Amino acid sequence: MSSQQNHKLCMIPGPVEFHEDVLTSMSTKATSHVSPSFIPVFGESIELLRKVFVTEHGQPIVVSGSGTLGWDMVASNLVEPGEEALVLNSGYFGDSFAACLKVYGAKVTEVKSEIGDRPTLQEISDALSTKFKLITITHVDTSTGVLSDVKAIAELVKKKSPNTLIVVDGVCSVGSEEIRVDEWNLDVVLTASQKAIGVPPGLSILIASERAIQTFKDRKTPVPSYYASWAHWLPIMHAYESRKGMYFATPPVQLIYALNTSLKQITSTPLETRFEQHKKVSDQVKNVVESLGLQFVPKSREVAANGMTAVYYPEGIQPADLLQKVASHNVVIAGGLHRAIASKYFRIGHMGISVTEPERKHIDNTIAALTTSLKDLGYSGK
Amino acid sequence: MSSQQNHKLCMIPGPVEFHEDVLTSMSTKATSHVSPSFIPVFGESIELLRKVFVTEHGQPIVVSGSGTLGWDMVASNLVEPGEEALVLNSGYFGDSFAACLKVYGAKVTEVKSEIGDRPTLQEISDALSTKFKLITITHVDTSTGVLSDVKAIAELVKKKSPNTLIVVDGVCSVGSEEIRVDEWNLDVVLTASQKAIGVPPGLSILIASERAIQTFKDRKTPVPSYYASWAHWLPIMHAYESRKGMYFATPPVQLIYALNTSLKQITSTPLETRFEQHKKVSDQVKNVVESLGLQFVPKSREVAANGMTAVYYPEGIQPADLLQKVASHNVVIAGGLHRAIASKYFRIGHMGISVTEPERKHIDNTIAALTTSLKDLGYSGK
Repeated sequence: MSSQQNHKLCMIPGPVEFHEDVLTSMSTKATSHVSPSFIPVFGESIELLRKVFVTEHGQPIVVSGSGTLGWDMVASNLVEPGEEALVLNSGYFGDSFAACLKVYGAKVTEVKSEIGDRPTLQEISDALSTKFKLITITHVDTSTGVLSDVKAIAELVKKKSPNTLIVVDGVCSVGSEEIRVDEWNLDVVLTASQKAIGVPPGLSILIASERAIQTFKDRKTPVPSYYASWAHWLPIMHAYESRKGMYFATPPVQLIYALNTSLKQITSTPLETRFEQHKKVSDQVKNVVESLGLQFVPKSREVAANGMTAVYYPEGIQPADLLQKVASHNVVIAGGLHRAIASKYFRIGHMGISVTEPERKHIDNTIAALTTSLKDLGYSGK
Repeated sequence: MSSQQNHKLCMIPGPVEFHEDVLTSMSTKATSHVSPSFIPVFGESIELLRKVFVTEHGQPIVVSGSGTLGWDMVASNLVEPGEEALVLNSGYFGDSFAACLKVYGAKVTEVKSEIGDRPTLQEISDALSTKFKLITITHVDTSTGVLSDVKAIAELVKKKSPNTLIVVDGVCSVGSEEIRVDEWNLDVVLTASQKAIGVPPGLSILIASERAIQTFKDRKTPVPSYYASWAHWLPIMHAYESRKGMYFATPPVQLIYALNTSLKQITSTPLETRFEQHKKVSDQVKNVVESLGLQFVPKSREVAANGMTAVYYPEGIQPADLLQKVASHNVVIAGGLHRAIASKYFRIGHMGISVTEPERKHIDNTIAALTTSLKDLGYSGK
């Protein structure tokens, strides 16, 4: 595998660098999805997810799919045609979540912000009313690196419209940003495997509160999806957690082994430590970006994520040139994704082992590659 | 990884045993889904899939998900509410495909057969009419091991109702049974990675004919799914095939590397040879089963699959006893799956490298484990 020998550090906002033990789990030999060796691995992974999401009774659901599938699960299981959804939009992923909700018949109201900003609590409060079945918050919009204040928004919703379900898109936040399902009264937090969870892409992972499950059970209309329907997945999750095999669709066995390995690593240190580490490394990266005189996509560091950094190219630097130059130093960073400014900025991911295991020097190498590359391209800084 | 040292041969009808190089690809280090190293791997895999499905212009679609997701793709992209679908039912998977089609608004007519049998051409002809938007055929029903004669059915449909789309569930057949998309005029063949494709579970793979794509494009109503909508996936497939990166949802990078490795292996010998090998090994296994005096679930060998064998337990043998005894000889075979007879039969998978690389002795070891186990349990044969 020549690609392995010339490996370039993958410092994009997902997929992130994976631990060697996680990769070894990915190559677990063929194992039956209902075998005595696999069942406890899946069962334990479900239990460990509760720890990562800080919930006692939330129901983890793990399905073969991309993170995107989590939107379908929310939209098809929790919304009935004609019901109202309030979408807080801080970038590309807010747009897409809104589009997904509409496909399943939701009437969507969006609270949009300028690129690099997030809806203010006042704007959210103004838009919020008891007519909304659910509100969605993109915790970190991977396209802009903007961080939402989930805790404050959840408190606001509890006060102003306590029956509104609180749904968090945590694809780019779970494992890197503080998130507490029970304490913050969240109803769904959805994520994917390939970011701070530290597992190759291919798992759609979510937690549903007891209230969310009840809402699903109380539906008056049938779930308008087959693959995404919780009617199929809940019995599977219950079965594996009680250490029994059961079949709906073949689970992605190797990815579940990898998930188990990574969740054990994640839960081996206090989550508080993990979040602090991500904050500290984020500060380190952002301090360098500032010292280079570059401009963040988020309008301030207060609204910036801790697991990634989105930065405008300095004037005169061509996107392809910088990305290629950085790659020539064996570090891969990402281009822009938000349609309106895609060619104007780049993104650096700093999540998972790149953050929690500083001895790997991923962050140092990334900073060095970026700094040198800018210099090579003739950018002299501020 | 202790599970690796005590590996038991996985001889169930999927997941099958995986080649070492495929497993090595599964542990490919983190790689950006839009990087110059990954894009050609995905692009080439799309091209290689055309060879495996024997089609020139069919459109491969590869999505993160279980095989089940293929039903959602068919039902949500090709059927509009109120349209008619004819489902040929030869087991559990026919039931489920019908259920999926109904979720998306299809009016489903089923042609059912007795367990172990398949609808006859006469029964299909009697049920078939031009009112059907599509007909679905389970090529091999994994629950019963019954093989359908796709070629003959497709010819019948072309004669009697040429506008009806022909959809084949090839989850348990692609790579082990002869299937020719263009020559047989098939419109969709869907499959999954973990059977004769030889890649760990987590990929939903299908081929759509130009006519199927046109049917999708001509829809009068919006696609009632977000994740399964071809509107999102077709541009992605086109982009990667033309060696460009594009984003809808993060592809399962490691699984795609593994797919690429396996497809190269599969296409390195003529498909005819591959199908012959599967027939020969199937005969070998079935001859042993017969010589032991055991009864097949399929009513005759003519309607039995070549990639698996479903067998009733002999009288007096408890299901758990036999499966455990076989496992004690380091071979895993599967219990029953069809609800009506689940506790009465077992299933052996013989697909992929276990068939094409006889030097591995997987088949010999499986036959020995089964024969010895039956003897150990006091079964003396006919």
